[in-house]
Amino acid sequence: MRIAINPNRESWKALQERPAADFSEMLPKVKPIIEAIQQEGDAALMRFTSEFDKVSIESPIVDLAEIEAAQDLLSEELKTAIRKAAGNIEAFHRTQQEQVKVVEVMPGVTCWRKSVAIESVGLYIPGGTAPLFSTVLMLAIPARLAGCREVVLCSPPDKNGNIHPAILFAAQLAGVTRIFRAGGVQAIASMAYGTESIPKVFKIFGPGNAWVTAAKQYVSQQGVAIDMPAGPSEVLVWADHTADPDFVAADLLAQAEHGTDSQVVLVTNHAELIPKVDAAIELQLADLPRAGIAREALSNSLAVFFESNDVALDFINTYAPEHLILLCDDASVFAERIVNAGSVFIGHFSPESAGDYASGTNHTLPTNGFATAYSGVSLDSFVKKITFQQLTPNGLERLGPTVETMALAETLDAHARAVSIRLQKLKNNALLS
Amino acid sequence: MRIAINPNRESWKALQERPAADFSEMLPKVKPIIEAIQQEGDAALMRFTSEFDKVSIESPIVDLAEIEAAQDLLSEELKTAIRKAAGNIEAFHRTQQEQVKVVEVMPGVTCWRKSVAIESVGLYIPGGTAPLFSTVLMLAIPARLAGCREVVLCSPPDKNGNIHPAILFAAQLAGVTRIFRAGGVQAIASMAYGTESIPKVFKIFGPGNAWVTAAKQYVSQQGVAIDMPAGPSEVLVWADHTADPDFVAADLLAQAEHGTDSQVVLVTNHAELIPKVDAAIELQLADLPRAGIAREALSNSLAVFFESNDVALDFINTYAPEHLILLCDDASVFAERIVNAGSVFIGHFSPESAGDYASGTNHTLPTNGFATAYSGVSLDSFVKKITFQQLTPNGLERLGPTVETMALAETLDAHARAVSIRLQKLKNNALLS
Repeated sequence: MRIAINPNRESWKALQERPAADFSEMLPKVKPIIEAIQQEGDAALMRFTSEFDKVSIESPIVDLAEIEAAQDLLSEELKTAIRKAAGNIEAFHRTQQEQVKVVEVMPGVTCWRKSVAIESVGLYIPGGTAPLFSTVLMLAIPARLAGCREVVLCSPPDKNGNIHPAILFAAQLAGVTRIFRAGGVQAIASMAYGTESIPKVFKIFGPGNAWVTAAKQYVSQQGVAIDMPAGPSEVLVWADHTADPDFVAADLLAQAEHGTDSQVVLVTNHAELIPKVDAAIELQLADLPRAGIAREALSNSLAVFFESNDVALDFINTYAPEHLILLCDDASVFAERIVNAGSVFIGHFSPESAGDYASGTNHTLPTNGFATAYSGVSLDSFVKKITFQQLTPNGLERLGPTVETMALAETLDAHARAVSIRLQKLKNNALLS
Repeated sequence: MRIAINPNRESWKALQERPAADFSEMLPKVKPIIEAIQQEGDAALMRFTSEFDKVSIESPIVDLAEIEAAQDLLSEELKTAIRKAAGNIEAFHRTQQEQVKVVEVMPGVTCWRKSVAIESVGLYIPGGTAPLFSTVLMLAIPARLAGCREVVLCSPPDKNGNIHPAILFAAQLAGVTRIFRAGGVQAIASMAYGTESIPKVFKIFGPGNAWVTAAKQYVSQQGVAIDMPAGPSEVLVWADHTADPDFVAADLLAQAEHGTDSQVVLVTNHAELIPKVDAAIELQLADLPRAGIAREALSNSLAVFFESNDVALDFINTYAPEHLILLCDDASVFAERIVNAGSVFIGHFSPESAGDYASGTNHTLPTNGFATAYSGVSLDSFVKKITFQQLTPNGLERLGPTVETMALAETLDAHARAVSIRLQKLKNNALLS
């Protein structure tokens, strides 16, 4: 770990820098794949699957028999755990459902806003060594709660052409409507533009490697919405003298094992903690399966000591961490002052992994400082909020002159006339009657 | 107007096509301007102002004296209208404030979500012939209600170096904290990266020409959030036999006068209406100041007749109009079936211009079919929704095994250990006590 003692504000920008992801160099490689999918559909998809996933598939469609069979391949313990997590995720996201509030801003002028599900959404779940079935829950449960008609899931096939049974089980449990064996750029393109098998969606969600991220960025420029810009995952732990060095070390390692580019930051007002955490990390690394990855991520990690809690708080809010763990006394009070973070874990018994899997909050969160302006995935991410207004003749008579005056001042006469012509007819009718 | 009679679904895509905006060709011209602002700050900003706005300014800062003086340059009638509109916009957007709902998903596991203002936002208001002070209200009022600490406004100076007094007045009324004379790509870059005068913001809002849109798209790729992707403004009017052709014509013209690329669509189940609307348009065009612009926009406009209301409704939802005006019987019932639209205007006395200015709903809305996945600007656009979770020792004992099981199944052992190490200490302490 790099260590910084009371770093001055001028140095924060450099200290807080994340690895810059420049997709402009990847686009020339991504674009032809996307265009091939647009032009050739399934044929191109299967060709790229053979090329990149090294498996030849007959169809990208995962059929119901295959999904149902997945049940038998999983332990009861794991299925129970997935069901419990799903229950908590559903309970929390259900509180995000918005009631329609009708407001009569003046007599006869009524406005409201209604959340309407995005009709068709696509979820991307990476393949590789770790089957991210937890991400399936995090994306599909709010999609179902929102009422999305079509919830499409793409995940790359393994060498035998299969998708991990835990992904299939979680998808069925959470309400995914169709599952496809498709990975990488070709999966993103298939969902963005549709193929013979895969329906076109309006918004694409989910993590992925740099190629997937570049593809999402590309299609988002072409009118397909995406969840949020992505960067490597990150944690910031704030720890004071009450923090247990073993807990701090475990929380930092849980982030570090994600990937070699994981961002791990410890901020403390208790200088003695840093060497203790270092020692605990070494101890815990000894028998960690992903120790190699964690060690490399930790070599870029940062421990910062601040004398002043207020300055530390500024540092944390400036960093805007994806995950913020508060291992301190009066953690709830400290949490009140957080303005930039994805998700906050309050107190010694709230490790990030609780939220990663099962506390109920969403684990798809803004990285790379995007927490300054972006929120994590929530029910909001799966709906549009459409506004409505209804004016009575009387309401238009009351509001009309305001509209006419403003429209004329903006030199938009036809805008004014859309009101005037109605007011005139109302007046004429009143004269007639 | 082009006319289509009962067009079959295969033809919809072509009928509904908007002018394609391809910014890739603009980027090579936008990028050097943005980089100059990043490197030279105010000096570059003033150089570009001189080059593009044809005026040499001493400072981009608009001082308080100038803002206060604007009051005296406006009629009382206009100031009253702006205040009334502001009142309605505030009343409606206030209903979007979200209360914190704390949910105990299981005993000892508590989650909640809190809306926290984006600390610093930038609003871009175009210059040109029409001073868009209404857009100032639409962006600055929700920013203030959300609690944004810094609300920066940039608008290009006129030939004398001034910003239109109505923009200054609306900005002060709505709670803008700082105003700058800066336009185009250089204004977007200044807000995205900061200059000596203009503070860096985390999110940029507002309309603009293709250059401004390209600049927003560029900075959004570099980590600065933007309100939404932009395209030409558009209206779709649904009219049945109860519709007054004069009202239909007025509403179509109000959209057509925006710009030559404005998208104007009439959909009806009453064939006789189309020629009547055409005649009314010609009559109203006769003395419309922006008739030239409107006429050109109308030449690309579309009138569609459908025998079936259900098919018409599908057509409308597939088009996903920015503005949808329902001039029909039982408009409220029809409105219930709308799933893709920015804002809906219900009934014969609810013209779009009411919402453009003063009904209270926001007029910054998704164009170009983006209403399939995007919402208009609202209070949500100015906040991040941060999630929090707090587990008691007992809560972790209850939830922990679920997390451990899932983490191990995802081969993320350190995630499991962040729980196990805590559970172990709790157990040891219990044994000790």
